[in-house]
Amino acid sequence: MPAVDIFFNPASFAIIGASENPKKGGHIVIQNLHEFGWGGSIYPINPRGGSILGHRTYPSVRDIPGALELAMMVIPRDLVPGAMEECGRKGVKGVIISTAGFSDSGDEVGRRLEREVVDIAARFEMRLMGPNSIGTVNVKDRFVTSITTLTKPEPGTVSFFGQTGMFASGFFRWITSSQNFSVAKVACLGNKADVDETEVLSFLGDDRATDVVGVYLEGVRDGRRFLQTVATVSEKKPVVALKSGRTERGADAISSHTGSLAGTDGIYDGLFSSLGVTRATDFDRFYDALKVFSFCGPARGGRIGVVSITGVGCVLTADALGETGLTTPPLAGETKRKMEAVFPTWAQVKNPVDMWFAIENVGPERAYEVIARALIGQPDVDILILIFTLIPESDFDAAGVVSRIRDEHPEKPVIACFMGGENSIFLRWYAAFEERRIPVFPDPGRAVWAARALVSYGRFRKRAAP
Amino acid sequence: MPAVDIFFNPASFAIIGASENPKKGGHIVIQNLHEFGWGGSIYPINPRGGSILGHRTYPSVRDIPGALELAMMVIPRDLVPGAMEECGRKGVKGVIISTAGFSDSGDEVGRRLEREVVDIAARFEMRLMGPNSIGTVNVKDRFVTSITTLTKPEPGTVSFFGQTGMFASGFFRWITSSQNFSVAKVACLGNKADVDETEVLSFLGDDRATDVVGVYLEGVRDGRRFLQTVATVSEKKPVVALKSGRTERGADAISSHTGSLAGTDGIYDGLFSSLGVTRATDFDRFYDALKVFSFCGPARGGRIGVVSITGVGCVLTADALGETGLTTPPLAGETKRKMEAVFPTWAQVKNPVDMWFAIENVGPERAYEVIARALIGQPDVDILILIFTLIPESDFDAAGVVSRIRDEHPEKPVIACFMGGENSIFLRWYAAFEERRIPVFPDPGRAVWAARALVSYGRFRKRAAP
Repeated sequence: MPAVDIFFNPASFAIIGASENPKKGGHIVIQNLHEFGWGGSIYPINPRGGSILGHRTYPSVRDIPGALELAMMVIPRDLVPGAMEECGRKGVKGVIISTAGFSDSGDEVGRRLEREVVDIAARFEMRLMGPNSIGTVNVKDRFVTSITTLTKPEPGTVSFFGQTGMFASGFFRWITSSQNFSVAKVACLGNKADVDETEVLSFLGDDRATDVVGVYLEGVRDGRRFLQTVATVSEKKPVVALKSGRTERGADAISSHTGSLAGTDGIYDGLFSSLGVTRATDFDRFYDALKVFSFCGPARGGRIGVVSITGVGCVLTADALGETGLTTPPLAGETKRKMEAVFPTWAQVKNPVDMWFAIENVGPERAYEVIARALIGQPDVDILILIFTLIPESDFDAAGVVSRIRDEHPEKPVIACFMGGENSIFLRWYAAFEERRIPVFPDPGRAVWAARALVSYGRFRKRAAP
Repeated sequence: MPAVDIFFNPASFAIIGASENPKKGGHIVIQNLHEFGWGGSIYPINPRGGSILGHRTYPSVRDIPGALELAMMVIPRDLVPGAMEECGRKGVKGVIISTAGFSDSGDEVGRRLEREVVDIAARFEMRLMGPNSIGTVNVKDRFVTSITTLTKPEPGTVSFFGQTGMFASGFFRWITSSQNFSVAKVACLGNKADVDETEVLSFLGDDRATDVVGVYLEGVRDGRRFLQTVATVSEKKPVVALKSGRTERGADAISSHTGSLAGTDGIYDGLFSSLGVTRATDFDRFYDALKVFSFCGPARGGRIGVVSITGVGCVLTADALGETGLTTPPLAGETKRKMEAVFPTWAQVKNPVDMWFAIENVGPERAYEVIARALIGQPDVDILILIFTLIPESDFDAAGVVSRIRDEHPEKPVIACFMGGENSIFLRWYAAFEERRIPVFPDPGRAVWAARALVSYGRFRKRAAP
């Protein structure tokens, strides 16, 4: 059987159900391939003839000259089995079925049709992604099969996949238009009638373009095989999982949506943790974890230095740390002495460091520089968390100062939190910090959560390869 | 003793430690009063003479012609007791001490100084806010004492207060520059040596400009008195509380930052819940709750209708609902019949409604219009949650459609969630929805959390006044 890489970088690609209508998926797929600049052969299939976006159409895949490696179907469900047969006879290696209304529909006809297309795929030794999949994205090789318009981003190192089509539509656009981390590969698996989470995870584990993998799970087709694969991949690169169906209500919603069973949720927490997997509880944290792993290496340990412009930042960070088991080592004598140079004499300085009085004393730039450098230089501090609030009075080249300090200790992750402030300063600082690969989070709780992911994965890697 | 309203709308105001240097708090306070357009008398106090921003300076409050109601101090701590004496002799009613280094400093000198200024205030029957307070904002009456520059917003209905200076600096700017709800009054209480959370809460409970009150608590000075006041205010308007010091680590950080004791955290959950208070766990949710209460009335009940463009939206919403005890009533026969007009025949429709197939069938505008109207029209649906993902293919005048449907059922809150999508569409839709007072949240979990706040407060109000 062909490997799943056929879905990410075929030599030739047919879109069955190609359309001249720019609002239809069968048109947008070709438009996206142009936008990304893919160099392979594109064959629009449409019995009406003519050409679409400069590509000659063919009545059927049979009429394509030469070999065809991958086909995608955006045709009504009743036409899918016939088209599958034709693909099989053509020697196609992989088919993405975008059409929905199979096991996801909840009706018997849909389930029967899905079994039928699976049988056809098996008979011809074709791989099948979907049904109800909007396909894949491979930024580096410029291959994309989304049925919603996308803009080509810079190639990145973060890959993610799961049942949902959101990954190659809304979330992809969100990242491209507003985020500072970049994507390597995406797969939307839909009903997982053939290609499932285990195979894609294994593929991304071996993928040299992928440094960190995220998976959204509703159900798992073969739990044992999946967990074995997770264990293997996790030793090579961080894996982040968002598993829904935590509650009975959620599990019900899943069964009506993809027809898959959510499985017993409770066991996942323990298993994921023992396998070094970061379990996210929502998409905010899913992407927080992908970002922090793409910007920072795993942490050496769980001892956190905290510097905050405001007391409330210290308190909320301490609360969040208290819930995670991460520690805040006391300031060493030398660290204190260095910091005392910028604090008023009466100030009692401890970790977390409330630096407001130092800012009043010497201004924000010198205060952050002296305090952050002293704290990250303390040998028993493993991660530095910096809390800012973005007002004109404390506006300075913070990204420059912080990245210089970070570069003096490349083994210690530095994480920033911007609590409130003027939107124009926020946008400028956000870009400047993340350009220097210092991840920014909007709330101390999320900054601590991200720090904890680096710590847990660091511990797993030490256990795995001591 | 004068009431705390003196801190929000005095007839005359002196800034002790006024400065010509535009970077100093003693300058910014006056600049802010100009920006807000306050009409009262401003007296800069500075022994060097001259004028600041067009106001003649006076060497001391004694030299001010006529009465002085409120003074603010931005002078070194050792000068504060002397200035307090002068204020007392002048007949000042209230003093805001912005200066830090009192009980917040952790040193004995600071604690002694604080006792001293409290004694002076009591002797002269003056009220004291702080020390370590950056004061108050009253948008409607254009009075502001923040020592960081602010921009005047439109007057609103949301008031919040607590120890932290963030409320009149970073958070205030964040709201003004990026949020669509508006502020009535703000108070930063600092060390709470005299004016405390109970008195300010009581004042805001009676304040006609305030529809919803948020309080950030590190510790409470007199728990019994505070809870009695909460009970009274909560019957009049929603109260949202963020209480930090959940963990021992957090409580430690608090004691070093304001010198107050965090108190036993566990008891707050039960007490707040029985008093109808929404307890936020972080500032994201604190402001989510303030926004949802300022846009929507309390809910009649906890039965939620959910419409989502994507299956994953249904699943995550169902998961979050499953954790809250809110329910998703099954679709009534009539609701189903109405929705079937836009779904393909094979689709199995249930609540939460995954509308993707309807969108493919009839386009997003008609799909949302028919499905949302049918669902909110079902008598046993109390709240409608709508999940969107913002891509060009599903771009339409959603705010218009949704607000028309909402207006047909003014007793039923409508809450939107934008999951991912293109940033330019996000910004446009966000403004359009919230202008129509439909609150938008970035994640289904946060949308459900906000819905739950409306439900819990609705139940409390029914119990309180059946």
